[in-house]
This record gives sequence, structure tokens and C-alpha cells, in this order.
Amino acid sequence: MDTAKLTTSYANLAVRVGTNLQPGQDLLIDASLEHVPLARELTRAAFEAGARHVDVRYVDPHVRRAMIEYAEDDVLSWTPPYILTRFEHLEQQRGAVISVVGEAEPELFADLDPQRVGRARMVARAEQWNRQLNARAIPWAIVAFPNAGWAEAAFGEPDVDRLWDAVAKATRLYDPDPIEAWWARVKELGVRAGTLNEQKFEAIHFSGPGTDLRVPLNAGSRWMSADFETSWGQKHVPNLPTEEVFTTPDYRGVEGAVRSTRPLQLPNEGVTVRDLSIRFASGKAVEVQATEGAEVIKAQMALDEGAPYLGEIALVDETSAVGRTGVSFGNTLFDENATCHIAYGTGFTFAVEGADGLSIEEQKAAGINYSQVHTDFMIGGPEVDVDGITSSGGIVPIIRDDAWQL
Amino acid sequence: MDTAKLTTSYANLAVRVGTNLQPGQDLLIDASLEHVPLARELTRAAFEAGARHVDVRYVDPHVRRAMIEYAEDDVLSWTPPYILTRFEHLEQQRGAVISVVGEAEPELFADLDPQRVGRARMVARAEQWNRQLNARAIPWAIVAFPNAGWAEAAFGEPDVDRLWDAVAKATRLYDPDPIEAWWARVKELGVRAGTLNEQKFEAIHFSGPGTDLRVPLNAGSRWMSADFETSWGQKHVPNLPTEEVFTTPDYRGVEGAVRSTRPLQLPNEGVTVRDLSIRFASGKAVEVQATEGAEVIKAQMALDEGAPYLGEIALVDETSAVGRTGVSFGNTLFDENATCHIAYGTGFTFAVEGADGLSIEEQKAAGINYSQVHTDFMIGGPEVDVDGITSSGGIVPIIRDDAWQL
Repeated sequence: MDTAKLTTSYANLAVRVGTNLQPGQDLLIDASLEHVPLARELTRAAFEAGARHVDVRYVDPHVRRAMIEYAEDDVLSWTPPYILTRFEHLEQQRGAVISVVGEAEPELFADLDPQRVGRARMVARAEQWNRQLNARAIPWAIVAFPNAGWAEAAFGEPDVDRLWDAVAKATRLYDPDPIEAWWARVKELGVRAGTLNEQKFEAIHFSGPGTDLRVPLNAGSRWMSADFETSWGQKHVPNLPTEEVFTTPDYRGVEGAVRSTRPLQLPNEGVTVRDLSIRFASGKAVEVQATEGAEVIKAQMALDEGAPYLGEIALVDETSAVGRTGVSFGNTLFDENATCHIAYGTGFTFAVEGADGLSIEEQKAAGINYSQVHTDFMIGGPEVDVDGITSSGGIVPIIRDDAWQL
Repeated sequence: MDTAKLTTSYANLAVRVGTNLQPGQDLLIDASLEHVPLARELTRAAFEAGARHVDVRYVDPHVRRAMIEYAEDDVLSWTPPYILTRFEHLEQQRGAVISVVGEAEPELFADLDPQRVGRARMVARAEQWNRQLNARAIPWAIVAFPNAGWAEAAFGEPDVDRLWDAVAKATRLYDPDPIEAWWARVKELGVRAGTLNEQKFEAIHFSGPGTDLRVPLNAGSRWMSADFETSWGQKHVPNLPTEEVFTTPDYRGVEGAVRSTRPLQLPNEGVTVRDLSIRFASGKAVEVQATEGAEVIKAQMALDEGAPYLGEIALVDETSAVGRTGVSFGNTLFDENATCHIAYGTGFTFAVEGADGLSIEEQKAAGINYSQVHTDFMIGGPEVDVDGITSSGGIVPIIRDDAWQL
């Protein structure tokens, strides 16, 4: 398997579709040490697309581990000022950012105090990003780089070629023209989002083993695909792969129980959460259970007022190229695009009509959650039915047996 | 060979002596991708010394290579604003920085346009550092991490154990208490600097094969060892190893020719300069020759007005633990502490009495060079005599046959 060729191809896709980088733009790349070959190809692809400057920041999870072990409590949530400067300048310059995921040591923090692990996040950076995201101020994209540790977590053996094959299928890298294939797929998903928008559902209902969850929508909730556009009109595709249509629910009225259908690897927390179940009452997660990692979820949900409320709901069916690989990737970028998912934490104002430019208080009053957290987890699959609830109480099947019904 | 143990020991030395890190200080670590094991040990050692926060920036020379290949001319010298913020905040917090050297691919840029290679440096950061250095605003230290590429360059084979052995000897890591050994050695070198200061030499003269160089000193030139102290009194040792006594010459009156006695690896430029000879007239380098790399030196010297003038003169003799290894390291941190060296480019105001706080114009008027460049190269050895010239024209031998004479 020519993984070097696949790396180049994935890098081109990330630059040309993910950020749709334009001549003269700066590019930031956020990667881990295991992502060096892709970071270098991204750099080259960016310069070939006309980038003015490319800056790579390599994060070392072992440095982060030492911080969680040793640092004072207030330092765990501290953002070094330069981290903010880096993204302030990017916003001013209308530059782009590509983040690379794919954990080489997905359990690296599993033996640390889950309270400290859950609290260890750069709050000021999370707040800056919420603002930049909702203002559509930066074209951004998330891609992944297969490595031995990730393959081990996914398959029980460090078979990187097997993981590359699954990643290549999921990202359409075997397609004769992956770039065109992705613009076409995003358009298809946009049509699906349009169909949902015409229905003007009042709520979405998920039912299956361990799941009976009603998620109300906002009056202005707008279903979207990853067919994104910045405030100045630069189209980009923030996730590669992407197979979802999603929107921002009304966080206040979520009711019922939901059981996660795939393990959830939290890269920031260095733990894998298994068999997660959450019960919501009046919008709030009031019960969290898991066979592994529950304490980290609880610590995350205790970070701020909005953390235990939902911020996103996303629908994916069997036509997903990710889902068709049959692989459980142990990586949210892939798993959330294999099946339906929801996220607790912050909602996106850009997915609600008329919510552009709302203050945080206004946003919350409009039913759009706000938090420094946004954690997706997978809840769909062949056994989970998805229905739309109309304003008159009618029930419209959306997904049955993993197949789209509208 | 237990290189993990040596790595831990070197890291402790860097933190406890190099920066002499105090509880509550922040630490920045600047390293390359090949330095990961040391960067992690530095992080741990720093937290154990009471660091508040540790931030590691890994530089990827391949990203830099792509920039030199592709970027517009003005981008080559650009400093991303966050790079300045990172050190501004460090200065405000009175934190420390450790830089790790040891190039894994010392010839990585050898096939690139030497003009562009020479121009590729962050000018604003160089200016910020000149200010911070002269204001003694940041405790800093440079250490190294052996790796296969560096060993290959030094020995012609990637024998990392052999390199570690030489590095351990040079850095006194085999000493029962390396920390105490270094504080003692720095004190010895301080005594040597004091002896030179008592002589009040007007100039230093180097003579040997291809070398006949007269370097005038400033009236206030103060010989120093690496026994540094910040403006608020934090002692630290900026180079480990360090074996030199050095001062800032009067850049205006340097006359004669000098031949480098060791290859000069320029990490920033990714090239190795061999058989460098420079002729100075009225202070300025007017002729530069080398069998390899001359164009990069010339490009550096063309960067600004001060670049082709001398900024440092340093004396090292046979008592150097680096020199006694008998190894030519192909790395300036080590080679410059094996033998006498000089640097073209900026001078240090802190090595001249009464020069604290001078503006750049005042500094230059006082005979202290200013430039964004500061490049050390090795000029000493058994065949090179070093003499002090007194105000009455007397000649006082300082080094003969590599042995200290005062």
C-alpha cells in the first residue's frame, strides 16, 4: 500500500476542499507528533495552492500529561496568551486552519485523576473558538492521520495499512478525483438538509435499545451539511470525511435516555469512554453512566452551566462511506460520520435562522446552548429509529434500518 | 548505554543549572522533532522544580524548508505575531527558556538557493531577543540532544551511543553530581575572566595557519564566563556545556585574516560551512571564502549593516571538557566550547561596562556592534596562539599550545 501517495492525496483534499485555501491566505496546522508526515504534505499542498505562510504547531500529549499531573488547578484551564494571538492574527488575515486528529496513545491519561483530566482545557481558547466558529471567521477543516496506536485501538493490532485502507475508503481517496467527489457529496447532503428544513419538525425522536430521546428543535433550527461558507463567502468543508446533516436543537427541552452505540475516544482527555448512557430531564443530563470513563464525562459536564445540555443533533444513514467500511474507528471524526450523533455542550448559532451575532445571553434565551465544551457521541445504528415530530404531533419516519426515509 | 538515564540527567542539569528554574516560573522549551525525549524530560524536570506552566514548541525543519522553497521574499523574514507574544509574556512573567539543539538533518537546505536560505530568519524575533538578551530579561539555556543524523554528521556513522558518550563527558553527566560540578566549573571560568579583566588589554591577537587577526576591545569590555544573572538576580548558565570566557570587542577596528578550525553547522540555514576564511578591514568582513557554504555566510552578512562586523570574541583552552573529548561535534554549542571562537553580528551590551540600556545608536557609537545576526565560528586550536595587547603595545601570551598562560 502506497501510504505516501495516500498522504499526499489526503493533504491535497484537506487544502483544496477542507479549507478551500485561496492564494495569499495563511494556514495554521495543528497536529500531534504522530502526524508529522501529513503535516509536511499539508504544508507543501498549501504552498502549492498559493499559501502566503504556513505555521505548524505540534502538540505533545506527554507534555500535556505532565501538566495534568503536576500543575496547579488554575493552570489546567489557562490559555497561554500566544495561543490566542495565533488565532487572532489568523482571523485578521482571513487565514485558514487545519487540525489533524488520530491519537497514537488514546489511553494516555486513563490512569490520571479524571477530575483534573476533565478540567484540563484552555478555556479562553475555547471561548475564542466559539466566537470565531459562530462568526464564520475562519475556514477550518479536520482531517486524520493513521498511525500504529490508532490502528491498535481500532483493530486490536497495529495494522496501519488496514487503517489507511478504511480511511481512504471513508475519505474517497480511491476515487479518480477525490476533490470533485467531495464537492458532489457535500451537495447531496445539502439536498438532504433542504428536505429536512421543508418539514419544519418541532422535535426529533430517537428510539432503540436503551434509547428513547426527544430533542426539540428551535423555531429557527436550520439543517445543514458540511457545505460551509465564511462570512466573506469562502466555501469550505470542515470535516473530511463528512456524511452528516445537523442542526442546533433547543437545549431546554431535551427529555429521555440515550445509549451510545460506539466507544467514544476523547483526544483532549486521553481516555476512551465505553457504553455511555445519559438521561436528560428538562434538557439537562441528570444521569451519566459508562463502563469506562464516566468520571471524565461528568467532570466535563461540571465545567460550566451549559456543558450538561445538548448543542448539536446530527443524522447519518447507510449511504455514509464511513459507515460502509464497517469499521468502528475509535475516532470521532470518523465514527460521528458513520452514524447519527448528538453533542453535549455549545450550540452553533450559524445553524439557527436569525441567530447571527447574538450575545451569549441572547443566544441562550433563544434556546441555543453555550459552553466551552462541545463533545459529540454516537447514538445511531440499524437498531435505532429516527422520527421527526411535526407541530401537530405527527410522526414522520426519517431513518429506519439505517435507511433514509424522506 | 542507558541513554534514558543520561537524558533525565541532562534535563535536570538544564533546568537546575541552565535556567536555575525557580518555583512559580513558566518555562518555554524550543526544540526540533528529533528532541522529543529530551523535551519531555525537561518538562518533567521543570514541573519537579516547581514550574507553573511548561510550553514546548517543536520546530519542523521540513516545514521551514517548504517555506524557503515556496514563500514570497518578504515572508522569509516575517515573524508570526504569536512568536513575539510568547516571549513577551515570558518576559512579563519572568519565566525561562530552554532551547534544544542537535540537527538530525544538518544538510537539509544544502540544495536550496543560498540567498533565500540566508535571508530566511524571523527579523522581529531576532530584534526582540537582542533586547531581551541585553536587558538580561529572561533566564535562558541551550542544551543538545544526540540523535542519529547528528552522530552521522560527526562520525560518518549514526552511532548515537558514541555521540551520547562524548556529550555526557562534555556536559559532565558522568560526574557523581553534575549540578555541583557545573556550578564549580562556572566559578573557575569566572576566576579566569577576572584575571583577564585585570589585564585591561586593548586588543587580542590570534595567529596561526591562515590566521593573523587583531581584535580591539572596548574600553569597557568585560570578560565574562557563563555565570549569568538576570536583571532581578536569578543566576543561570546559558550554555551547557560552557567552557569559554568571552567579551564584546570594538567592532570598528578588527583587522586581518582568520581561518576557521572546525566545520560550522548552521542549524537555521541547514548547511555546513567548511574551511571558512574571512578577511577583515576596518572592522568589516571584506572577503569570505569556504570550500562549502560561503554563499550562505555572504547572504547572512548582507542581511543588515552590522552583520559583517564582529560581535563576540571568546577564549577556550585545553582544560575544556568538550575539547578533551577529541570530538569535532559539528555543532556550535559543543565546538565553540572546545576551542576559541569569534562571532560576526550583534554584540552583547551586558559584556561592556556602562552599556546597560543604551539605544541601538548609542550602542554602535560605543563600539558595540548591532545586527539581527550572531554567528559563532571556531578559530582556535593547538596551532593558534592568542596574545593580549596592552595599551603600551606590550604582548602578553594568553594561550600557547592550547594551554592557558595567565
